[in-house]
Amino acid sequence: MNYVDDSLMLHTDLYQINMMEAYWRDGKHERKAVFELYFRKLPFGNGFAIFAGLERILSYIKNCRFTQSDMDYLRNEVGYKEDFLHYLKKFSFSGDIYCMEEGELVFANEPILRVEAPIAEAQLIETALLNIVNYQTLIATKAARMKQVIGEQTAMEFGTRRAQELDAAIWGTRAAYIGGFAATSNVRAGKIFDIPVSGTHAHALVQAYQDEHEAFKSYASTHTECVFLVDTYDTLRSGVPNAIKVAKEFGDKIHFNGIRLDSGDLAYLSKKAREMLDEAGFPDAKIIASNDLDEYTIMNLQAEGAKIDIWGIGTKLITAYDQAALGAVYKLVSIENEHGEMEDTIKLSGNPEKISTPGQKRVYRIINNENNHAEGDYIALASETITQEPLIMFHPVHPYLNKVVTNYRAIELHHPVIKSGHIQFESPALKNIQMTAKENLNYLWNEYKRTLNPEEYPVDLSKACWENKRNYIEKMKEKSRRV
Amino acid sequence: MNYVDDSLMLHTDLYQINMMEAYWRDGKHERKAVFELYFRKLPFGNGFAIFAGLERILSYIKNCRFTQSDMDYLRNEVGYKEDFLHYLKKFSFSGDIYCMEEGELVFANEPILRVEAPIAEAQLIETALLNIVNYQTLIATKAARMKQVIGEQTAMEFGTRRAQELDAAIWGTRAAYIGGFAATSNVRAGKIFDIPVSGTHAHALVQAYQDEHEAFKSYASTHTECVFLVDTYDTLRSGVPNAIKVAKEFGDKIHFNGIRLDSGDLAYLSKKAREMLDEAGFPDAKIIASNDLDEYTIMNLQAEGAKIDIWGIGTKLITAYDQAALGAVYKLVSIENEHGEMEDTIKLSGNPEKISTPGQKRVYRIINNENNHAEGDYIALASETITQEPLIMFHPVHPYLNKVVTNYRAIELHHPVIKSGHIQFESPALKNIQMTAKENLNYLWNEYKRTLNPEEYPVDLSKACWENKRNYIEKMKEKSRRV
Repeated sequence: MNYVDDSLMLHTDLYQINMMEAYWRDGKHERKAVFELYFRKLPFGNGFAIFAGLERILSYIKNCRFTQSDMDYLRNEVGYKEDFLHYLKKFSFSGDIYCMEEGELVFANEPILRVEAPIAEAQLIETALLNIVNYQTLIATKAARMKQVIGEQTAMEFGTRRAQELDAAIWGTRAAYIGGFAATSNVRAGKIFDIPVSGTHAHALVQAYQDEHEAFKSYASTHTECVFLVDTYDTLRSGVPNAIKVAKEFGDKIHFNGIRLDSGDLAYLSKKAREMLDEAGFPDAKIIASNDLDEYTIMNLQAEGAKIDIWGIGTKLITAYDQAALGAVYKLVSIENEHGEMEDTIKLSGNPEKISTPGQKRVYRIINNENNHAEGDYIALASETITQEPLIMFHPVHPYLNKVVTNYRAIELHHPVIKSGHIQFESPALKNIQMTAKENLNYLWNEYKRTLNPEEYPVDLSKACWENKRNYIEKMKEKSRRV
Repeated sequence: MNYVDDSLMLHTDLYQINMMEAYWRDGKHERKAVFELYFRKLPFGNGFAIFAGLERILSYIKNCRFTQSDMDYLRNEVGYKEDFLHYLKKFSFSGDIYCMEEGELVFANEPILRVEAPIAEAQLIETALLNIVNYQTLIATKAARMKQVIGEQTAMEFGTRRAQELDAAIWGTRAAYIGGFAATSNVRAGKIFDIPVSGTHAHALVQAYQDEHEAFKSYASTHTECVFLVDTYDTLRSGVPNAIKVAKEFGDKIHFNGIRLDSGDLAYLSKKAREMLDEAGFPDAKIIASNDLDEYTIMNLQAEGAKIDIWGIGTKLITAYDQAALGAVYKLVSIENEHGEMEDTIKLSGNPEKISTPGQKRVYRIINNENNHAEGDYIALASETITQEPLIMFHPVHPYLNKVVTNYRAIELHHPVIKSGHIQFESPALKNIQMTAKENLNYLWNEYKRTLNPEEYPVDLSKACWENKRNYIEKMKEKSRRV
């Protein structure tokens, strides 16, 4: 039997609910827990990531209640018992969430988000939080990476048809906008997120008229803003000449904004088309290129001197094609014991980078007051206070390389967005989030923003934080040996 | 200003609406058009694909009406004029859709779906149809490909946290089920699609108890069906021994179903764990493996003699990590002219494989009655009749290789699913779709199902269809030269 899809509460892994049951039956479900959400490796070999996903998280938490159909399903099909179901029925999220703002720069192994809540509650929401942050942050980062290459030219998101189902199309284009894209072809995304929408016509229009000239004329008769797609039959012999012909025929009656190239050798075709447009007296007509573009093909086209003004990007952006997942995880770092005290926890692994860092922590960005650039990020235990004393920043890979920062400011990156289950944070207008992301990138030295082989940005643990971690590694290893 | 997200009608590219406007102002919007949806290349180097997406398409078409907020947005923000908006307000889909059933095998360059509708209507729905089919077919195919390697063992979908946003998690797991996966961790997908759900506990449970033995005991006290995750601290020294200890302590009070390995060398660990479980008297306890698995790592683990019984697969399946998009397109193949007659259309390209095949067509699977295996697929113009005469099947790449099929049946693969805007098709139970996919694979010779370098399955055009295409190529080339 199928149930109605009227809630996101079961958008979680079954084991979360099983663990909630174990905690609840053991009377441990109300114990305060601290979970941190972070990824271990920057995607695409990029030097930074851009966080996105908070708006979606807030709306998810706001609606965090089991519906009748959820309860019916859990009772009838999964077989949970009435007493536990009774607990779930009253469930709502009562904890705190601290989070970076969307558009913030984020690096490997630093918490993007921290949940402090009764353990059963913190556990239930893990899956959806990761599902949201992993994708949206991946796409905002991919977009920002592409925008670094595109520079001041315009980038447009055209990927809906290749997106991984409907949500990815709209939340992906929102993330792309945060990362610096100017517009989208997806009208629904334009509608609900206030993103500029863009698009003129497709090959089908030309085919429907069975004649390119007729099709362009029809479009020009019905639309003032005209970009003609010129590759339905033959770009240089037919498409561009027909575009020019119609632009001349219509004169002032339309704005001939340019042409779009969607196949073939974009370097060669754009240079030839540019000449043809210039000679015909349309030096302001833009050339828009699309067709499986990514940051690498764009760099190549630039190097070949392609005359492209606007980049329309689909598949490679909206699916983050060369790395389709960000591996963010959500780890328990501290939990209340039976005496009401917080105890740190660790997860060990044969892989050093998979060992979690115990303890409730804060993340600071260290900005050098002299040059207004970031020296690195600094992760300290929540119990520590950051004074204005000289700070020693270690290189993340080669700790013998370190620098002492003196005249700096330490900006805490986490903001309380949910307190006792109530939303405390209103998302800025999307335009402002985009602006924030752009400004944040200004704090970063160019060597961290390079497309290929960027320098590794320092993300340091404080001495106390590192020593705490080392102690826990020893303690848990010792314990394992005694089984 | 942001608008409420109360409809999927604007889940389309802006240019579709612009083209609708051009057709409408020209009085051409009611002209009957035939569009075909197909992809040009099988994903992952696989020898077949499995179609999925129809159920979602049907519910999309059913709700195909502009809401007030859609109209307000189009009026106030995009700036369409009242007369055209008035037309949109009354819009509903009135055409026909012919489609393969979900679970059908599909190959490159054959139409999965055919829309026959007034051109303005057919145009509007393109984007959503591609968005749905591209993703769901990709994942069903990836799942079936993995299942070919896994064989009769159990495969489980664990990918929600890495999926590209929420829709991908649930529609992706549905597609994975169609492709042969037995269960999912996503409870919402279980609820709405009636897919078995699976899962026990995570590392967090062990960390929360600060003691693996305590954590396993707690889980066993509260759940009868027990699988213990054994790699939180040390798999062989601590995890497996604690699992065995608890299994012995609880005896008949629980079903000790097995252990899960989620990190480290799965070949070595599974063999050692198997020995330990067997020696302890638990030969029926299963070993479940997870951790970035795909068909290649699974083949390697099998070759190394890993003792794994059940495969939990996340990221690589749910994102189709090694090829995150299927490039299906939607091409106009025929359109009504001003005399009410249908005329075929073509889209040319410098790339031969990007040239569309004109004309309304039907797709047949040719099954050899003697051995009950598919000889290939056969694409004919809708006007042709397939008789029982010997059929010449050409090799798709090397046409000089051909075979004559005599004792065969030709099964038409498209079914009318929507007629005059009304849904004519009820999706079978998901279980039955999975079964259909499995049975369909039985018709395929093994050489097409090989994971690496499969033979290319023949997809032939009929002689009439091929000659029609050649004529149109000549005709349109001739026309381009005359601009």
